[in-house]
Amino acid sequence: MKLKNNRNPISVAEAVFRVVERARRTGTETVPLAESYGRILVEPLAATHDVPHFDRSPYDGFAIRSADSAGASRDRRIKFKVIDHIGAGDVSKVTIGDFQAVRIMTGAALPSGADAVVMFEQAIVTEHSFTIRKAFAPQENLSLQGEDMRAGETVVPAGSFIHPGTVALLATFGYGQVQVARRPVVGILSTGTELLDVHSPLEPGKIRNSNGPMIAAQLARMGIPYKMYDTAADQLEECLLTVREALVETDCLITTGGVSVGDYDYLPEIYEQIGADVLFNKVAMRPGSVTTVAVSEGAFLFGLSGNPSACFTGFELFVRPALLKMMGADKTYLPRTTALLAEDYPIANPFTRFIRAVHDRTSVRPAGFNKSNAVSSIARGNSLIVLPGGTRGYAAGDPVDVLLLGVEEGTDEWVL
Amino acid sequence: MKLKNNRNPISVAEAVFRVVERARRTGTETVPLAESYGRILVEPLAATHDVPHFDRSPYDGFAIRSADSAGASRDRRIKFKVIDHIGAGDVSKVTIGDFQAVRIMTGAALPSGADAVVMFEQAIVTEHSFTIRKAFAPQENLSLQGEDMRAGETVVPAGSFIHPGTVALLATFGYGQVQVARRPVVGILSTGTELLDVHSPLEPGKIRNSNGPMIAAQLARMGIPYKMYDTAADQLEECLLTVREALVETDCLITTGGVSVGDYDYLPEIYEQIGADVLFNKVAMRPGSVTTVAVSEGAFLFGLSGNPSACFTGFELFVRPALLKMMGADKTYLPRTTALLAEDYPIANPFTRFIRAVHDRTSVRPAGFNKSNAVSSIARGNSLIVLPGGTRGYAAGDPVDVLLLGVEEGTDEWVL
Repeated sequence: MKLKNNRNPISVAEAVFRVVERARRTGTETVPLAESYGRILVEPLAATHDVPHFDRSPYDGFAIRSADSAGASRDRRIKFKVIDHIGAGDVSKVTIGDFQAVRIMTGAALPSGADAVVMFEQAIVTEHSFTIRKAFAPQENLSLQGEDMRAGETVVPAGSFIHPGTVALLATFGYGQVQVARRPVVGILSTGTELLDVHSPLEPGKIRNSNGPMIAAQLARMGIPYKMYDTAADQLEECLLTVREALVETDCLITTGGVSVGDYDYLPEIYEQIGADVLFNKVAMRPGSVTTVAVSEGAFLFGLSGNPSACFTGFELFVRPALLKMMGADKTYLPRTTALLAEDYPIANPFTRFIRAVHDRTSVRPAGFNKSNAVSSIARGNSLIVLPGGTRGYAAGDPVDVLLLGVEEGTDEWVL
Repeated sequence: MKLKNNRNPISVAEAVFRVVERARRTGTETVPLAESYGRILVEPLAATHDVPHFDRSPYDGFAIRSADSAGASRDRRIKFKVIDHIGAGDVSKVTIGDFQAVRIMTGAALPSGADAVVMFEQAIVTEHSFTIRKAFAPQENLSLQGEDMRAGETVVPAGSFIHPGTVALLATFGYGQVQVARRPVVGILSTGTELLDVHSPLEPGKIRNSNGPMIAAQLARMGIPYKMYDTAADQLEECLLTVREALVETDCLITTGGVSVGDYDYLPEIYEQIGADVLFNKVAMRPGSVTTVAVSEGAFLFGLSGNPSACFTGFELFVRPALLKMMGADKTYLPRTTALLAEDYPIANPFTRFIRAVHDRTSVRPAGFNKSNAVSSIARGNSLIVLPGGTRGYAAGDPVDVLLLGVEEGTDEWVL
């Protein structure tokens, strides 16, 4: 029988640091703008022109020469003659002279000679003219060229996630194609003699594999493609073959199970046989203390626990930032906030504890049954509470750190 | 010339309510589990069996009869004989007798006769036996059948967003196919004579269409398919034709521009010509007060402002909950939190104001230039600050409501 390994736990922060430090950049590819959402920008997004690129009217109204409005008052209205009429996209061919104006719609370019805009509600309008009762300053009611962005300015840095606002900017500057990071291809291998396929009927002592599909969904949430390997029984040779195959076919392999110190946990031996550099094999965290990360020929081997809750957490804490760093992302860590614990959590935390939880606005509540082999709480939560190692229990109302994992779902209550 | 419309602003809450109230359910379809991430469950997810469905060991150790351990102490160690050895997925064929034990790995089914587990670290182990120094209670160190979930229990309600944890549960219960809501097909039509295609060089007075691609990305973020119509100049007949076409081809049409009271804003007339029921055409909000929503033959017509920031906000406030409600989602509103304003915002808010902002942990800061025609701040932010109408300016440190819109990106700082 195998001797029990001696493993020295390292802190979660140290473990995350060791992983991120070893991440190597994937390549670059070009995608059409319409497919760029969710990708990572590999080059800074620079303004190719001023925005706006011409002085324009932000209102429906009349373009005038402000000098002509000097001295206007309630008792001394000044009258302007309307000599043209333009909408957004039109350019007036006229040049405005003394007490002349152009009727102008929101977004239209300021006509030659004009330097201010009178809003409709600031004028008394007749068919071909209008009067005003106040003086207008030069540039009053104008959107000035370059006030939003200047040509050449870096508007979004390299490494940024492309979200809908980024897409709007890319479109503005004529980027029909976008240079983005190639997404790593990730292999998923669930190990365990107890694992049945989702389509199989239950058998005594066996359970259906939930970790494989869950990780596939965690990758789908990040928009990252994956290759699912057939579930492997706890047999050294079979696992070893699949790991070798995956190292050729993918940029990174995530395994579940087999990393603990049980009699049939073969991953440690596999790391040894392929000569992998084990970054750590014990982390001071619950769940998932046996999480192991290794690097072999530049490829990551993420050895996640077979316990669903530990597996889920291990992915979000270690795999996610590694994949984002591989793509050159500058924001690799989970979004987070601080919230008030909605109920007592009396258990002490020798190791840092991650608790699947429901976050709503400013409070957070454990999502339920929270053993590391529980699967229900993963589905019920939208966040993880983080309780640092070395702390005692927490009371309702205590502020705690919260990692926001499922906020794409939203809430059932309108904010206002 | 057209007379200025008289429009009565309604509150944002009332506008949202009017929209959601009119949302009609889309149909149902079945997708493979591997494609279910991001969809909406149309049926409650019920447990098809207990979880675990057998008593099992949560540790590596030895299964014993607890009664045999009675009286054990440091000075009176009790010895057990190991008669079998099983891993997860194995079922022992033996029944444990007096002072007998089965060596058992995490996840394996408890052998017949056993009712407790001795962890390795609680035993002194020799080749075929071990001794213990304390008594074990019945069910000590066990994972009991049904402790996580009970057969028949509704684990996730209908209307839930399918996230990775939900996928894990679906897999556990053998749902290889999932009943989900059909996603509505959404049409996008950008209107405006000033609009150029992303591939076109700039022209005087014209700008590239950024709203169309931005909305496409907002839909992509929700996993919703769309049909992009050719940009329409501000011409009544052309727009009317496209709107009629879209009403046949899609479940819902989003237009940008043309909803204000300018001389070339034809959407109000189009709603009239097609006999649409206008739910509102003025909302007490900035930006986007001219946002108009109508319903025609059961299909939504979202008339968003052509100003990028107003367009962005209008989508998230009105289109998003409508689409989610159409799919039967139970959490239709944006995730939100409360945070402390990082800088003064001295402007008064006659209407409710939505400010594109950067949220980090417990603070939030306006993302920059915030006129409704600005596009840079949309790209720079990850959230919206909500300042209720009727309030005066806010000071740094004031708590404000925050809608979390871009949290899929995360943060650049590790939480611990």
